[in-house]
Amino acid sequence: MLKTLPVRPLTQAAFKPFGQVIEADASRMKLINGGNTERFHALAEAEVVGDGARVILNIFRGQPRPFPYDVAMMERHPLCSQSFSPLSGRPYLVVVSEDEDGKPGEPQVFLARADQGVNYRRNVWHHPLMTIGEPSDFLVVDRDGPGNNLEEFFFSQPYSISEPSL
Amino acid sequence: MLKTLPVRPLTQAAFKPFGQVIEADASRMKLINGGNTERFHALAEAEVVGDGARVILNIFRGQPRPFPYDVAMMERHPLCSQSFSPLSGRPYLVVVSEDEDGKPGEPQVFLARADQGVNYRRNVWHHPLMTIGEPSDFLVVDRDGPGNNLEEFFFSQPYSISEPSL
Repeated sequence: MLKTLPVRPLTQAAFKPFGQVIEADASRMKLINGGNTERFHALAEAEVVGDGARVILNIFRGQPRPFPYDVAMMERHPLCSQSFSPLSGRPYLVVVSEDEDGKPGEPQVFLARADQGVNYRRNVWHHPLMTIGEPSDFLVVDRDGPGNNLEEFFFSQPYSISEPSL
Repeated sequence: MLKTLPVRPLTQAAFKPFGQVIEADASRMKLINGGNTERFHALAEAEVVGDGARVILNIFRGQPRPFPYDVAMMERHPLCSQSFSPLSGRPYLVVVSEDEDGKPGEPQVFLARADQGVNYRRNVWHHPLMTIGEPSDFLVVDRDGPGNNLEEFFFSQPYSISEPSL
């Protein structure tokens, strides 16, 4: 019997150990463009390391996951942060773990609204993109360059996520 | 009588002198995440220069522009590229100029679809965010750090843009 993980709303406070929530936070707002535009400034930072590395923008198109979903693995990127901003106007799940001696601890599951992106800090364990219900596009800011930027971990006993109620 | 600028569809070919179109280009696709996700790779690059600079992610919320719209000024950023990816599922206008001896030439106007972002190369003249019809949010990737990163130019004779037909 797999352990079923609780699904919590995504908030800046809850996500702080893992990175930043990219949302229109009124406390970060300044007016620009002669008052036409609200700039929510520096909600996240793209960090890349290593010689010959560059910050790149990509689109990820994820197929919806089946539920209940078995979380059998997690991954992390030693050389860069990685951000996901939803372009399709749909909520999605964010699954992250604190590091425990080089392995991911028990995953934490957050339900992100359609107007919330996330930025995983460098080396933060996360599950690959988990979309709900329909194929969904995301703008992804991460890294291109030489070096091994992917580490994967497979759980001996997977965890389960029930279908989230939207 | 102001000169009315034509509005053209945004395409990678037409936009090439100014930067990149950030769209799900099938030629840049590779499957990742065990086949779950299509990654449209490195559609654009964030370029920042200068000591102490970092690549940041922001949200811009633009109020709709009135039409006919008078293009009275253009701006450029000497220290960074700047990308705009629509988060609100709405088309918008992109207004850019080639540089002519340190000043913007006659502006070129592109109608971007809701699924097309743009990345202005460093030092490319552009008009501030031009949304249509309703307030719209964009993910913006640009720069934070010291130094003067804004240059503005005001036309002695503005240009006009008619309300685009969507």
